Amino acid sequence: MHSAVDVIRAKRDGGELSDAQIDWVVDAFTRGEVADEQMAALAMAIVWRGMTRRETARWTQAMIDSGKRLDFTDLERPTVDKHSTGGVGDKITLPLSPLVAACGAAVPQLSGRGLGHTGGTLDKLEAIPGWQADIPVDRMRELLADPTIGAVVCAAGDDLAPADKRLYALRDVTGTVESIPLIASSIMSKKIAEGTGALVLDVKVGRGAFLKHLDQARELATTMVELGTDAGVRTVALLTAMDTPLGHTAGNALEVCESLDVLAGGGPADVVDLTLALAREMLAQAGITDIDPADALADGRAMDHWRAMVRAQGGDPDAPLPQARHTETVRAPAAGTLTRLDALDIGLAAWRLGAGRARQGDPVQAGAGIEMHAKPGDSIVPGQPLLTLHTDTPEAFPVALEILAGAFTIAETESAPPQPLILGRVTA
Amino acid sequence: MHSAVDVIRAKRDGGELSDAQIDWVVDAFTRGEVADEQMAALAMAIVWRGMTRRETARWTQAMIDSGKRLDFTDLERPTVDKHSTGGVGDKITLPLSPLVAACGAAVPQLSGRGLGHTGGTLDKLEAIPGWQADIPVDRMRELLADPTIGAVVCAAGDDLAPADKRLYALRDVTGTVESIPLIASSIMSKKIAEGTGALVLDVKVGRGAFLKHLDQARELATTMVELGTDAGVRTVALLTAMDTPLGHTAGNALEVCESLDVLAGGGPADVVDLTLALAREMLAQAGITDIDPADALADGRAMDHWRAMVRAQGGDPDAPLPQARHTETVRAPAAGTLTRLDALDIGLAAWRLGAGRARQGDPVQAGAGIEMHAKPGDSIVPGQPLLTLHTDTPEAFPVALEILAGAFTIAETESAPPQPLILGRVTA
Repeated sequence: MHSAVDVIRAKRDGGELSDAQIDWVVDAFTRGEVADEQMAALAMAIVWRGMTRRETARWTQAMIDSGKRLDFTDLERPTVDKHSTGGVGDKITLPLSPLVAACGAAVPQLSGRGLGHTGGTLDKLEAIPGWQADIPVDRMRELLADPTIGAVVCAAGDDLAPADKRLYALRDVTGTVESIPLIASSIMSKKIAEGTGALVLDVKVGRGAFLKHLDQARELATTMVELGTDAGVRTVALLTAMDTPLGHTAGNALEVCESLDVLAGGGPADVVDLTLALAREMLAQAGITDIDPADALADGRAMDHWRAMVRAQGGDPDAPLPQARHTETVRAPAAGTLTRLDALDIGLAAWRLGAGRARQGDPVQAGAGIEMHAKPGDSIVPGQPLLTLHTDTPEAFPVALEILAGAFTIAETESAPPQPLILGRVTA
Repeated sequence: MHSAVDVIRAKRDGGELSDAQIDWVVDAFTRGEVADEQMAALAMAIVWRGMTRRETARWTQAMIDSGKRLDFTDLERPTVDKHSTGGVGDKITLPLSPLVAACGAAVPQLSGRGLGHTGGTLDKLEAIPGWQADIPVDRMRELLADPTIGAVVCAAGDDLAPADKRLYALRDVTGTVESIPLIASSIMSKKIAEGTGALVLDVKVGRGAFLKHLDQARELATTMVELGTDAGVRTVALLTAMDTPLGHTAGNALEVCESLDVLAGGGPADVVDLTLALAREMLAQAGITDIDPADALADGRAMDHWRAMVRAQGGDPDAPLPQARHTETVRAPAAGTLTRLDALDIGLAAWRLGAGRARQGDPVQAGAGIEMHAKPGDSIVPGQPLLTLHTDTPEAFPVALEILAGAFTIAETESAPPQPLILGRVTA
């Protein structure tokens, strides 16, 4: 006979939970037998005391077992997915998924919506007129099997790791988000349940990421790589910089537009570089070593897959993207070199302009966001446009402008040292 | 604008909560605006990080302010109360309250019912036919003012520190009971709200107490003495041993019976000694220094007050006390000296026999409990009765006997060193 108080006290006092305790508490919480206040106290005890590798693996498995686990092993092509821990201007999934599909892998990506200052992939794709995030599993399988498509980005169903869904909502309101084992098990339970054969993790670190320090990011990456590996999913992680936004845009339609530039063979260097680095990792995990993804970007194959992908989910790849009704420009106050463009400030301002939501279920504005006309290292002349703010709700301009006033630094220097984008790599 | 998550995160990260944060979170919790799961996470963060003296004092004040604070300053006699943190066989309130009243102080005691292995004073008094725990405040004032009575032991109303009532119920199911600041503020919010001018704390330490170590007991005592002093209540604490039960009985009617022995001038030495020690502390706190409570026990004045007190609350001091329908005897298996009689085991066995309750609101058996025919230090002959078990539910005998099999040690020694009863004293 298990008791919630016994499990809480064991963890509170620094003990290890047994497999049976973990299985029971996750299941009983999902069924409502363990009350929210009990799980909240246990989550805080886990924030305090941590979990061992064994405990974290078992916790993850218990969350997977709370729902169903998809299986795509019958597909002819290897499956591989990418997950980012969230950043500002992180539109990488948009060019990456069709690119990897164009190179011969199948990409089954169950994705999420944004909350707070980091954007969600589904919010970005929903800026495309007609595009639908809800795809039944059977249809997902057809799209993955189709060699002209091969990638699906869609919303996770309610039956995928429901324990995680319940627990995440609880952690969000109880100050218990910040725990490496809980974060790792939340992400990996969904990714393992999604049925992918291989996984590449993009663990963000820096001002605009929720992990500010490289050692924390490495610990999270290591924990997730261990969890994936233990569950039979080939997993590798890149640690990547998130001090400044990725690319020149933050906002839903704005980021789709920039992704199209990348798929057309252009686009900002950092977005292209990270897309190719992640594509190479994904293809290596999928066992595809004879194709250079740079070629598939250059020759239009990735764009063909993008157009087929969008159409397969009801979207019109040729429809004009939504534009915000109001814009405002921030101009450079001085000459010099842009040495800092703060990802967190840009993310917060874009959120307040309407690109993100404060509460789950709130709508977002497709056209809202921020264009960045310069990136760190660029030379600046006084009065040149630095940022363009987009919104349908111009009453948001003052608060966004207030946030952005401290978002950048222009220094009297000839050049700024380039910041590396990829800070580390973690393998099993 | 306060947010529960901000308050939780501040404490989680080791910060101090501001007065405004504490006032808000306790009030919002009482009103239901801060959800149970949020308070549970905060309570666990407090178990982890602790609270400073200022935070604990403010937390206590916020719990007092959630209800009303009684005021007996208009009484002609000084008010003084005693609180015990709970032990096995701890019937001290029964002889102590009328004894102190007989010496000229007024004793306004709001008391509780038992849970688990420690008994509750109200449960013991309710063994007296007709006795009522619920006394309106106006009637309480009359009884305290009456020089022939002067003491009231009754149940706390729902309007006394309601925040504490809610929080204690939550802590009980979330593994967050074990926190010195939370325990101290829970006890002291009720005692300060009760309106007593002075307070003597009996902080139990040992196997049968919830604090097992003297340093923990000293920390709790110090925290409570500080809280009382800061709130204008003259407070002193004794640290007393609870490795072996107090007296020769554990159980409701059994303990009333033993208390009558003490009031009649007899009774077990440890019960008499502790009653007199606490009476002297209470009288000193009340400023009454010209009366020796030993005289008031010896000459029957304390017994007169007891009889008046019982009658004033509807009880019949002459009615026979309830007796359990079934008894069982545990006999000494060997000769020697009784060197150990474990308070926790005796408490657990008495509880299982029906003297205590597993859940709040459950009934208790008035007659159930355990008589102890020998105490540590006594010489034992083989086959002599050591314990008599009393219950109305004889199906409880096997489990009680199993617990009691390990409850005592008889050693081949001439004598055992006497254990001191009073281990320390804490003043402001």
